[in-house]
Amino acid sequence: MSRWEPDAPGRLQLAAFELYTERGYDQTTVAEIAARAGLTERTFFRHFADKREVLFNGGDRFRATIVDHVLAVPASATTLEVVTAGIQAAGSVFPDRDTIRRRQALLHANPELQERELSKLATLATSISQALRDRGSPATTADLAAETGVAVMRIALTRWIEDPTERPWRTHVNTTMAELRQLTA
Amino acid sequence: MSRWEPDAPGRLQLAAFELYTERGYDQTTVAEIAARAGLTERTFFRHFADKREVLFNGGDRFRATIVDHVLAVPASATTLEVVTAGIQAAGSVFPDRDTIRRRQALLHANPELQERELSKLATLATSISQALRDRGSPATTADLAAETGVAVMRIALTRWIEDPTERPWRTHVNTTMAELRQLTA
Repeated sequence: MSRWEPDAPGRLQLAAFELYTERGYDQTTVAEIAARAGLTERTFFRHFADKREVLFNGGDRFRATIVDHVLAVPASATTLEVVTAGIQAAGSVFPDRDTIRRRQALLHANPELQERELSKLATLATSISQALRDRGSPATTADLAAETGVAVMRIALTRWIEDPTERPWRTHVNTTMAELRQLTA
Repeated sequence: MSRWEPDAPGRLQLAAFELYTERGYDQTTVAEIAARAGLTERTFFRHFADKREVLFNGGDRFRATIVDHVLAVPASATTLEVVTAGIQAAGSVFPDRDTIRRRQALLHANPELQERELSKLATLATSISQALRDRGSPATTADLAAETGVAVMRIALTRWIEDPTERPWRTHVNTTMAELRQLTA
């Protein structure tokens, strides 16, 4: 077997996703994930630190997309507009709703996965805050705007995947931001 | 040795705190924590699930204090005023600043502890949201207000422990809430 496996991370992620859903997260081993993907355990560990991490493949790209958009907003925008633009952009790298729905159900059912998700979201908030500082925001404002933005994103995500009329991501972000404004008015 | 140990959880927490600071979290075992506290490992596991959990002793009381205050605010208050009252009340159950400062440094240095902290804060947000629903808030408003409130609390906490002039908790909560209003105006 060649060391080069086309899209090994994606295949491992899909296999893990299927097995966690079929058998449960605790009952699945790395060996089984690798076998389902037609790869070796060694390949698994070349790409992921553990069986939690495989569910977070794509997270760096997600974070980079948000940060890039935060940095690209014209200087005339308010801090909240900048953060909103970043969160809007996240929609461009989401998989389809059904995949996210199943992923969130998995996270919800497994405290270990939930903890890792929260940790990734905290890292995302830190990155957004750093991008806001790079744009010239004071550190205190940057932290507050980033934390608030991530809170809005989480709530908009739940609404988006649960929306029976399937309105677009953008609509849910705007609605949630409008509610935040109303809440603090 | 009697099965009844006065304030065993508090003694174990103090011992864990000292050992994690002196030797590092990874290098400390449950046996060592129990020995330092003058208790058995069995007593440790009667009170805590693992060596992470021992650092979160008091968390239920903290959460209950906030929820009780959220429920006690007069019905005429706005949702944000209600959440602010809950967060203000958290100040009454904080240990002194120096203990919190050392605790936050420990969390910051250990990703495992940080993940558990984030998980506890997510539970806190869920509890605040539930209390707001019990007061009659719609579910969507309750979630958003609770998540935003916890974000404000985290930022106020950092400012409070880092404040060289040692202004009270109440001042930092009010200042951070005022900044949130300005951010979303």
